[in-house]
Amino acid sequence: MSKLILLRHGQSEWNLANRFTGWWDVDLTEKGVAEARAAGDLLREHDLLPSVAFTSVQIRAIKTLHLTLEQCGRLWIPETKDWRLNERHYGGLTGLNKDEMREKHGEEQVHIWRRSFDVPPPDMEQGSEFDLSDDPRYAGIAVPRTESLKLTIERVLPYWQSTILPQLSSGETVIVAAHGNSLRALVKHLSGISDDEITGLEIPTGQPIVYEFGENLRPARERYYLKDA
Amino acid sequence: MSKLILLRHGQSEWNLANRFTGWWDVDLTEKGVAEARAAGDLLREHDLLPSVAFTSVQIRAIKTLHLTLEQCGRLWIPETKDWRLNERHYGGLTGLNKDEMREKHGEEQVHIWRRSFDVPPPDMEQGSEFDLSDDPRYAGIAVPRTESLKLTIERVLPYWQSTILPQLSSGETVIVAAHGNSLRALVKHLSGISDDEITGLEIPTGQPIVYEFGENLRPARERYYLKDA
Repeated sequence: MSKLILLRHGQSEWNLANRFTGWWDVDLTEKGVAEARAAGDLLREHDLLPSVAFTSVQIRAIKTLHLTLEQCGRLWIPETKDWRLNERHYGGLTGLNKDEMREKHGEEQVHIWRRSFDVPPPDMEQGSEFDLSDDPRYAGIAVPRTESLKLTIERVLPYWQSTILPQLSSGETVIVAAHGNSLRALVKHLSGISDDEITGLEIPTGQPIVYEFGENLRPARERYYLKDA
Repeated sequence: MSKLILLRHGQSEWNLANRFTGWWDVDLTEKGVAEARAAGDLLREHDLLPSVAFTSVQIRAIKTLHLTLEQCGRLWIPETKDWRLNERHYGGLTGLNKDEMREKHGEEQVHIWRRSFDVPPPDMEQGSEFDLSDDPRYAGIAVPRTESLKLTIERVLPYWQSTILPQLSSGETVIVAAHGNSLRALVKHLSGISDDEITGLEIPTGQPIVYEFGENLRPARERYYLKDA
């Protein structure tokens, strides 16, 4: 039986500051580091040791992966970083404090941007200090100017199908260290959650979520938090 | 022009304790962590930013790589871990304090084992506490019972040819974070050093060594320490 571990990065500096982060590359806080290590302890206690790892190209996810793997003695497993596991791109909201946004655009509009399935926030302005179009890590990639959750799913799922799923079919124990919305994409797909419901589903930081797969490569039971196992 | 950065891991716990380490998996000391970070600072200062990374499956090299990459803002580049970049396997000497070895076997014998090109140390005993034959990270690999430098080279160079060199031919800036003897293998090959001379060549911990490659995929100039550039 193959197993999949989904792990949202530990608390980041902008989680703490309540700012829209998206593709902007912020570091973990001390609490975030501790959360990542605790996730590794939990994997070790449950003898749920990853054999293959995937993460985004954003340091909060990469560092979470490394800290977790080190803590459970698996720093040596193969790891692949890919932009398709990045957080949703928040467009023109990137860098803004959520409280300020609410004052400026109104609680309702912000709620729509954050939580509607297919309405993207306004585009990021070209030349904005948060514009990553020229970042070398995205060379050759059409960096989005904004993304709805729907658009995020549309780049996460092909990567899941082409690259992650084959590892599960080979019997690997796969860990995916990623972000709130790239993980929502996977949970929506694997647990069959509706467009309306998925936008309200919270993925907590640093908490391993586990799927167990049967022979047909469908989850053999519903997902669970490892801490509750 | 492609560039190659060779980086020996920072000081490890057993470097400090003066014990033969080989394939045994020991962590960095605080000094080793600082050395790895300083290497990243140096890369950043010289704007010599890796675009592809290789390392062994031993945590002292992997952590050195991660600390160095984080420090120069390149944690997001692709990285590949492979046992063929591991340290030389010291066989039955693994775990022994070098002073004790000298007392037991004599200075001369220890010197031969450490420094002769093709005389391997005695085999590691089966069931020794340092025997890694059953370690899951080496599943499917015939873990050596001992290695001379010659045997080490014989597994490093095919990996260099098949996997690292093609990245240089694609114009990448490649970093290889590895070990004293796996790096000796590369330096011997690239700088044309004789069997006799290579055993005495010291590769210092945490000091980036740079090769620049011309179009014929041969070094365009002799290697240099980045700190002296």
